[in-house]
Amino acid sequence: MGAHFWIRQTRSNAIRSFSKVAPKNRHTPPKFKNSEGTKMATTTLRGKPFDRQALDSMLRRRLFYTPSFEIYNGVGGLYDYGPPGCALQANIIDLWRKHFVLEEDMLEVDCTSLTPEEVLKTSGHVDKFADWMCKDPKNGEIIRADHYVEEMLSARLKGDKEARGFEVKMEETDQKKKKKIKSTGAVKLEDATVKEYEEILARIDNYDGPELGELIIKYDLKNPATGVLPSEPTAFNLMFQTSIGPSSNAPGYLRPETAQGQFVNFAKLLEFNQHQMPFASASIGKSFRNEISPRAGLLRVREFLMAEIEHFVDPNGEKKHSRFDEVKDIELMLLNRETQLAGQTHVEKVVIEKAVAEGTIANETLAYFLARIHLFLEKIGVDLSKIRFRQHMANEMAHYATDCWDAELLTSYGWIECVGCADRSAYDLTVHARKTGAPLIVRERLETPISIEEWQIEIDKKKFGPHFKKDGKIIEAAIQALSQDEREVLAKDLASNGKILINIGAQDLQTVEISKDLIAIERRKRVENIREYTPNVIEPSFGIGRILYALLEHNYWTRGNEGGDEARCVLSFPPIVAPVKVLLVPLSSHASFKPLIKQMSLKLRSLGLASRVDDSSASIGKRYSRNDELGTPLGITIDFQSLQDQTFTLRDRDSTRQVRADEQAVLEAVKALVEGEKTWSDIEKELPVFEGQDIDPNLN
Amino acid sequence: MGAHFWIRQTRSNAIRSFSKVAPKNRHTPPKFKNSEGTKMATTTLRGKPFDRQALDSMLRRRLFYTPSFEIYNGVGGLYDYGPPGCALQANIIDLWRKHFVLEEDMLEVDCTSLTPEEVLKTSGHVDKFADWMCKDPKNGEIIRADHYVEEMLSARLKGDKEARGFEVKMEETDQKKKKKIKSTGAVKLEDATVKEYEEILARIDNYDGPELGELIIKYDLKNPATGVLPSEPTAFNLMFQTSIGPSSNAPGYLRPETAQGQFVNFAKLLEFNQHQMPFASASIGKSFRNEISPRAGLLRVREFLMAEIEHFVDPNGEKKHSRFDEVKDIELMLLNRETQLAGQTHVEKVVIEKAVAEGTIANETLAYFLARIHLFLEKIGVDLSKIRFRQHMANEMAHYATDCWDAELLTSYGWIECVGCADRSAYDLTVHARKTGAPLIVRERLETPISIEEWQIEIDKKKFGPHFKKDGKIIEAAIQALSQDEREVLAKDLASNGKILINIGAQDLQTVEISKDLIAIERRKRVENIREYTPNVIEPSFGIGRILYALLEHNYWTRGNEGGDEARCVLSFPPIVAPVKVLLVPLSSHASFKPLIKQMSLKLRSLGLASRVDDSSASIGKRYSRNDELGTPLGITIDFQSLQDQTFTLRDRDSTRQVRADEQAVLEAVKALVEGEKTWSDIEKELPVFEGQDIDPNLN
Repeated sequence: MGAHFWIRQTRSNAIRSFSKVAPKNRHTPPKFKNSEGTKMATTTLRGKPFDRQALDSMLRRRLFYTPSFEIYNGVGGLYDYGPPGCALQANIIDLWRKHFVLEEDMLEVDCTSLTPEEVLKTSGHVDKFADWMCKDPKNGEIIRADHYVEEMLSARLKGDKEARGFEVKMEETDQKKKKKIKSTGAVKLEDATVKEYEEILARIDNYDGPELGELIIKYDLKNPATGVLPSEPTAFNLMFQTSIGPSSNAPGYLRPETAQGQFVNFAKLLEFNQHQMPFASASIGKSFRNEISPRAGLLRVREFLMAEIEHFVDPNGEKKHSRFDEVKDIELMLLNRETQLAGQTHVEKVVIEKAVAEGTIANETLAYFLARIHLFLEKIGVDLSKIRFRQHMANEMAHYATDCWDAELLTSYGWIECVGCADRSAYDLTVHARKTGAPLIVRERLETPISIEEWQIEIDKKKFGPHFKKDGKIIEAAIQALSQDEREVLAKDLASNGKILINIGAQDLQTVEISKDLIAIERRKRVENIREYTPNVIEPSFGIGRILYALLEHNYWTRGNEGGDEARCVLSFPPIVAPVKVLLVPLSSHASFKPLIKQMSLKLRSLGLASRVDDSSASIGKRYSRNDELGTPLGITIDFQSLQDQTFTLRDRDSTRQVRADEQAVLEAVKALVEGEKTWSDIEKELPVFEGQDIDPNLN
Repeated sequence: MGAHFWIRQTRSNAIRSFSKVAPKNRHTPPKFKNSEGTKMATTTLRGKPFDRQALDSMLRRRLFYTPSFEIYNGVGGLYDYGPPGCALQANIIDLWRKHFVLEEDMLEVDCTSLTPEEVLKTSGHVDKFADWMCKDPKNGEIIRADHYVEEMLSARLKGDKEARGFEVKMEETDQKKKKKIKSTGAVKLEDATVKEYEEILARIDNYDGPELGELIIKYDLKNPATGVLPSEPTAFNLMFQTSIGPSSNAPGYLRPETAQGQFVNFAKLLEFNQHQMPFASASIGKSFRNEISPRAGLLRVREFLMAEIEHFVDPNGEKKHSRFDEVKDIELMLLNRETQLAGQTHVEKVVIEKAVAEGTIANETLAYFLARIHLFLEKIGVDLSKIRFRQHMANEMAHYATDCWDAELLTSYGWIECVGCADRSAYDLTVHARKTGAPLIVRERLETPISIEEWQIEIDKKKFGPHFKKDGKIIEAAIQALSQDEREVLAKDLASNGKILINIGAQDLQTVEISKDLIAIERRKRVENIREYTPNVIEPSFGIGRILYALLEHNYWTRGNEGGDEARCVLSFPPIVAPVKVLLVPLSSHASFKPLIKQMSLKLRSLGLASRVDDSSASIGKRYSRNDELGTPLGITIDFQSLQDQTFTLRDRDSTRQVRADEQAVLEAVKALVEGEKTWSDIEKELPVFEGQDIDPNLN
């Protein structure tokens, strides 16, 4: 079924195969073959069956998110975050910034979304960042080709199962989409056909456009709505195009990722870092992808928040990391390449240090970031039993990539890629340098100068410039970028033919001929005092919206799971990400409670704790119940006794248990709980448990 | 010469004049006529001449910001923020969120930038959000008409001054643009012509396209580059257009403001707020405007961060504000409408309470927000002598707006509108409700039911629906939105003509005829238990990039201002917004200092204070000097004595003075200084001043 493999898969593949549109989804994550996984995906935090529709409807009711422009009938793939979603997102981002940027002195940058075409041409996105789509010739419906084939074959398989008398659960046939797959009716298929269909579905993400077109014809996949075959698939670029400035000759796009802004600023960032290596830049911002027909709620949207790190490292020295020792003992759940190659999906718990030593993870720096990603996900409250790190297959990665792992989170949609972490070698800096002539390199003084024998190129500048005019600079950049092997070949060409051909690869300048009066290529010795190199980049890339959605699923359960009211939902966020930390609940909206409420609010604020007052007329139980759905971990009740003796009850969201104490003790308990220094059971040991007042939401 | 009046001026004006493109810049802020203002604009914090070029070059060197995609030759109006700019921006946003959103329990939302055309059609942007542009028929150059006329006339005036033997300063002729105005050569003009030109320049923002075209012809304003007249001005819509989804019939735009997302979600937000009024929503996010030829650095950009509040209030009850008492004694510098009408520019210091009582500011809620804006600007470090609140002239405001004030900050570009604060009445909710039929209203139970005599409209639903088919809903919405006055007129029409005409105003449905068999309009009595009303909206709207730039100018000075080295710049940010709070400087990069540095870093981090280590090989003075430019308020030096007795020196950026104390005392001092509890002179009274080691940057 294929998670939507959204983090720069295409860019990774883009350059390898210029002759065709690169498939955006290449791998087949072995979802729902893992029976344990399936079980987990459909259970809540409290181990009871998970009902996605109930969660969805609660999330919309509580305005975590809502379809954008709904009063205008909405637009697919666009969602707005309401107050709790917005606060949750802000808390995740805040933690991300502390965990990554501040902890490691990363250089955070904020680059524009608007990007001129040339930049994305260089990165490969203009030519390759595409999905395959068909059109129904009868009703004009636009169809995403891979999804279409998947749905059609699944429907036939479902019909077959019905014919064979199996009970068909929606989960089994189409976990990924909200849309319920209609069977084609109880039509039994040949056993061989069933096998064929299943094999196709297993590798559905690996077909390119022409192949999908062949499948449509071969299996006569007529659109049930019109009874005709859809058109031949064509490539649809997923970037939103626009025009920058009033002239029509400045095409631009909304960035599909934040990475390019960091690469093009590399030289400035290196200088800002006082030329010290290694260092990382980081960026948090919106990216945009014009999905053909987005479904799956927050998991596949057209505008989304990304947080990306580009860690620049010297390719020499095995990419060691100075803080590797701090994480080497952490255990990760790894699904490595070999396991997948063997058609298996079992995950191995491996100590990071061992994974590097055995070569499972390519190098220390990459492994360091995998561990840091794991720690981050743990900190924000992702269910640790629903994380795995899946290694890319060799054919999923770009030719230049050294290694790549995805942090996948298990949701009711399957294993979803939420963070990608790739060693992209020197690729990105190299292509931008080659295109622009900018020196995206590091210069390092050598302690002992070295003598080098090499192929050197000398250009006769007096003739070269006038000969090539405006193209001179770019041609020279291409020449200087030639490898030693290429130079050797060209030296021979020059000697035998008196001229060479250089491939420039620019849009309007593919190949140029250079004659020997303009250029010399000779083997010479030279002494080098400075080492110049293009850094490699390790790139952890986070889809914040996907992480946020997984977090919602992972922390959701209902009181029904514990024998209470099924309709009462709870989001058990860790306090650190909870939108609001404390709810203040006066017994009624009577004026006599207001001074105490105000005093408590101010004190909480001075402790840096976000609180909210609910003095509506609903019962206390109802008010707490509403805030359980908002994930508010703690509640303070102000009642008549509070007015007399200045004591308050403090309630724990998850257990609904309460203690009672004076203001100072309550505030200290709140602070300790929110900062993770104490647990609720610690608090119950310290403060008297309160049972006098019934605020169990099940009983109100 | 006219600040670029960018915060929704057009939308405000859009609806009033459908027959022509609304001028985007309507007012003529009386900049540089105010001699005091001029003086202030060109002096630094320390009262010395301000050199914009020096600041600009420092800001780029220190990577506060940089033109985006510079290695690709850049794109006008796009800037990236580097690490210090990014941190400064994040700190401003963080304070904004605390000061507004958390302080007043506002409902923060995060809506998409991508917006379908229909929404922006309703808001008026599709038709009216435009600038006037000309084309040079010879070289194809695209010219913004108002800027062109301004430049041409300014050049002639400059030539005239030269002819008259005046010294011509750039500041006097073109404060707004970086581009130096070339004079036309020393050509003396008639005195009457000089006066005419000056009058035109004073109202340059008030001309519409045809008028600008007339000026070009009347004064024969040939383009010096080509010697020909530019073409007739045409309207250029400033929104970036794109297409959402694969079909070409779903046009969309990048939002030019964040407000619409809040309006269209009004009903959901009201419900989230448990139907309590008043309440405010807030949003922080990027907006986009496709400027014709942006200059003026960060002040006029194509992609920028906005923070907007929509405070929804009951129009009855004089728009009182429950927390008005907290701000009533604050004094603001007001430039009111009457003063401007009289051709004056003097600013009056007025106590808020008095301004409301005298009717200068329309209501308490609007005044409350002006005061809160003032407090916010003060908190982040804006120079209080460079803030004024300018009231919009009656003809600047939309017909529906009640009152509007801009917080303008004085910079070397003149008085720049950085925050707009308008009472927009019920306009926005009304147009969206009318267009979509969504009930963007508040329903309030009346304590005592009231009997009302009114014009009621009854629709014969059985006939109405089939008659109008798909348009029925929108027509009914338009009918129900009719005012009592309109109903009275229509009742007469219906009686006399047997039919009425209703203006729907939809793109494909301008006017419909309704005959009396479908509708009845009668005067009737009814008892009302529920009051329904459309809230009014008070809208404070912040341009974060502009505020950030003004903050840079306001906090910039050089050591030369105090007799030191002119090349040594300082940014005296308040600690609360400073990108980094503390610089840690070991005497050298020797390993012996590392444990102390690490220990100090960790302790600062646990106090929540961002610090940074500079252990480069530069002298301590140079390292401090670099961080003075980054605005780092405090520095801690670790020297050999530190190794022996665990004492450290603490340095104050602004005075370069130092104290020496043990770790605990230094940390306490840092915390107190950063949190604003103590000043440097308090610290000097408590801790021994240190003069043993020379780190005055002027002497290193």
